[in-house]
Amino acid sequence: MTAHYDRLETRPQTERQMAQFACLMAQIAHAKANAPYYRDVLRDVDPAAIADRTALAALPLTRKSDLIALQRATPPLGGLATVPPTALRRLFQSPGPIYDVQGHARDYWRLGRALHAAGIRAGDLVHVGFSYHLTPAAMMIEEAAAALGCVTFAGGTGNTEQQVQALADLGATAYAGTPSLLSILLDRARELGVRIAALKRASVAAEALPAALRERFAAEGIHVRQWYGTADVGLIAYEAEALPGLIVDEGVLVEIVRPGTGEPVADGEVGEVVVTLLHAPEYPLIRFATGDLSRFLPGESRCGRTNVRLEGWLGRADQAVKVRGLFVHPAHITEVMRRHPQLLRARLVIARRGLSDDMTLKCEVDPSAEGSLPTTDDLAETLQLITRLRGTVQLLPLGSLPNDGKVIEDLRNLT
Amino acid sequence: MTAHYDRLETRPQTERQMAQFACLMAQIAHAKANAPYYRDVLRDVDPAAIADRTALAALPLTRKSDLIALQRATPPLGGLATVPPTALRRLFQSPGPIYDVQGHARDYWRLGRALHAAGIRAGDLVHVGFSYHLTPAAMMIEEAAAALGCVTFAGGTGNTEQQVQALADLGATAYAGTPSLLSILLDRARELGVRIAALKRASVAAEALPAALRERFAAEGIHVRQWYGTADVGLIAYEAEALPGLIVDEGVLVEIVRPGTGEPVADGEVGEVVVTLLHAPEYPLIRFATGDLSRFLPGESRCGRTNVRLEGWLGRADQAVKVRGLFVHPAHITEVMRRHPQLLRARLVIARRGLSDDMTLKCEVDPSAEGSLPTTDDLAETLQLITRLRGTVQLLPLGSLPNDGKVIEDLRNLT
Repeated sequence: MTAHYDRLETRPQTERQMAQFACLMAQIAHAKANAPYYRDVLRDVDPAAIADRTALAALPLTRKSDLIALQRATPPLGGLATVPPTALRRLFQSPGPIYDVQGHARDYWRLGRALHAAGIRAGDLVHVGFSYHLTPAAMMIEEAAAALGCVTFAGGTGNTEQQVQALADLGATAYAGTPSLLSILLDRARELGVRIAALKRASVAAEALPAALRERFAAEGIHVRQWYGTADVGLIAYEAEALPGLIVDEGVLVEIVRPGTGEPVADGEVGEVVVTLLHAPEYPLIRFATGDLSRFLPGESRCGRTNVRLEGWLGRADQAVKVRGLFVHPAHITEVMRRHPQLLRARLVIARRGLSDDMTLKCEVDPSAEGSLPTTDDLAETLQLITRLRGTVQLLPLGSLPNDGKVIEDLRNLT
Repeated sequence: MTAHYDRLETRPQTERQMAQFACLMAQIAHAKANAPYYRDVLRDVDPAAIADRTALAALPLTRKSDLIALQRATPPLGGLATVPPTALRRLFQSPGPIYDVQGHARDYWRLGRALHAAGIRAGDLVHVGFSYHLTPAAMMIEEAAAALGCVTFAGGTGNTEQQVQALADLGATAYAGTPSLLSILLDRARELGVRIAALKRASVAAEALPAALRERFAAEGIHVRQWYGTADVGLIAYEAEALPGLIVDEGVLVEIVRPGTGEPVADGEVGEVVVTLLHAPEYPLIRFATGDLSRFLPGESRCGRTNVRLEGWLGRADQAVKVRGLFVHPAHITEVMRRHPQLLRARLVIARRGLSDDMTLKCEVDPSAEGSLPTTDDLAETLQLITRLRGTVQLLPLGSLPNDGKVIEDLRNLT
């Protein structure tokens, strides 16, 4: 089970970077030429100049949260598609609603790599534990299973007794779905006195996999690995044999940026996951801000795969809040920091005091920075200028704030 | 919209018959050579001798209702498959449970022909109104849509508000699912004040399409056509432009037999639908008794398609009932008729009299038959011998019994 999916996984990083940025240039040129949205937002971009991560980081973000408005303004796909909807393979609806697409490429969402890394192979019978209705998760597995040469069984998310019976009668050797449904099916099998002996591997996603659940599956003889992705971009990263960490897929470029901005964080810091698809002819997504938080792990996996690794899903980045009737965005805090470069990190904490909202900007300052340090009054003035809200400021020593990706922390109990 | 799907549909019946029986011989040889079940049940059959419908009618039936026991005895597919389950494309579970398969052929269930006859074409966006979970109906549509070059949206059977929103936002031009769900979605759209203006065509199945519902769809600008099939054999027959009647698919041979037997009824009589797949390399079904009732319509469709037509689904043939604790099968009644060849038709009517079950065999007799007519006492004696139950017998003139395919009619109100 140590074999890699293809030789892309083990190529040297320099080779990967060369190949990926060559793809990216072609992808950007294609998007500009054929998708009205990109023709507009990438108007002044020379595709041939996007040769490294620094150049990539200067391109505008497209936020998942913006897709609703974009799609409403230019139905159905916001001008992001290079072809009419009738030239696609399938359309999907995620909550929002946000419409997602499947193009014509084999294994369109590239999940074959993740199932393979979980040990799933040709001839496995894969029991699918995602819903097939409206959203694309189950079809992602179907396409990957077809690419690998697996047989599938569409379990869906209800009918747990029938699913348990099918698992036993058909002898599924692998499961692909949410970890919670797998746990429910194992419980149900025990209640019904049904043995599910053939099930040996599981590929799970779409929610957290607590360590205790991973151990429970292992105790039942099921080897489980996670993948992380979204309905828009497909696979982003996947666990292989060696833990910890989710190895980034070969078909995407991943950046971790300060929430509310497009600026990459320092290596190892928590931030928002931004994904660029390297080859998506029908529906290019360039610097697509997922709204998810993660961070890069240092070094490489022991399994021989050379791509960078993510820690996994660490929460949601969309921390915009309403304070005394006005919106405060993570981008506001970034702007405060831009105006006071001596600030290393900042976090706005919102609390309720009596009947009013209380806003405190907690800042880590760099004592070695050039120029005089700003006073708390200076900072409070900038904060008010940018947010139109009064707040207090606390200066803190380096390392005081938790590294959890939160730029705005809302402590108000609104229930 | 008058174009045919291929030239198979308009070939002369003699050409069709030659080609189909050549396929059938190869299929029977393949099944005997590779599927343990057929090796057994077709042991004494020479494939080359099955050259016409008379020879076909002598082959044993495989009943849908037998599949549960066959599959339980030889899991998972009862020895009917020619390949191991891992060499299939998908597996499904229908109520029973009966496990169904999808092999590797493009448009495995041959539904492309039915969608085409309903006017659905490449570039249509098809909203799928079947469940994708456990059973294969939705995947039948998916495979057909892919073959035609249509885009699909997986509506499923719940979430009607989201489905209505998707219908409106994406502008689906066609619907494929149950007629009742389409009706529900149109009602819901009206409640929500949402216009579904792009929807022009519908292909419906899996339940009856009452005339009133067809008219309602037409009044909303939706051209609707039905198809009829099962999870086991796929498409059996489909409506085209010209009504009435469902034209038999080019990939199957259909027989109509007396329920409980393998004997074809006279042309135009109601009986059980028996289907033989002409090309199913992984999972041959030869004289598969569906348990559904239908009958052939005389003549040909005005649309130019030359194959025979079915009236559609006319109920269930599996009319086994329990009378005073004992099972009575349609085959019992057939056996009574076999012993008294002067009976032309017979129908067992079960009613409740006081606290007991009352059983009456109603028989049409042929006054011109050779030999003396049996008395009601003779017939009651045979009935008791075969069913181990006492019953009364009524002799009726020719044409007294309704032509509805019912051999056993249960009038007991058990609620």
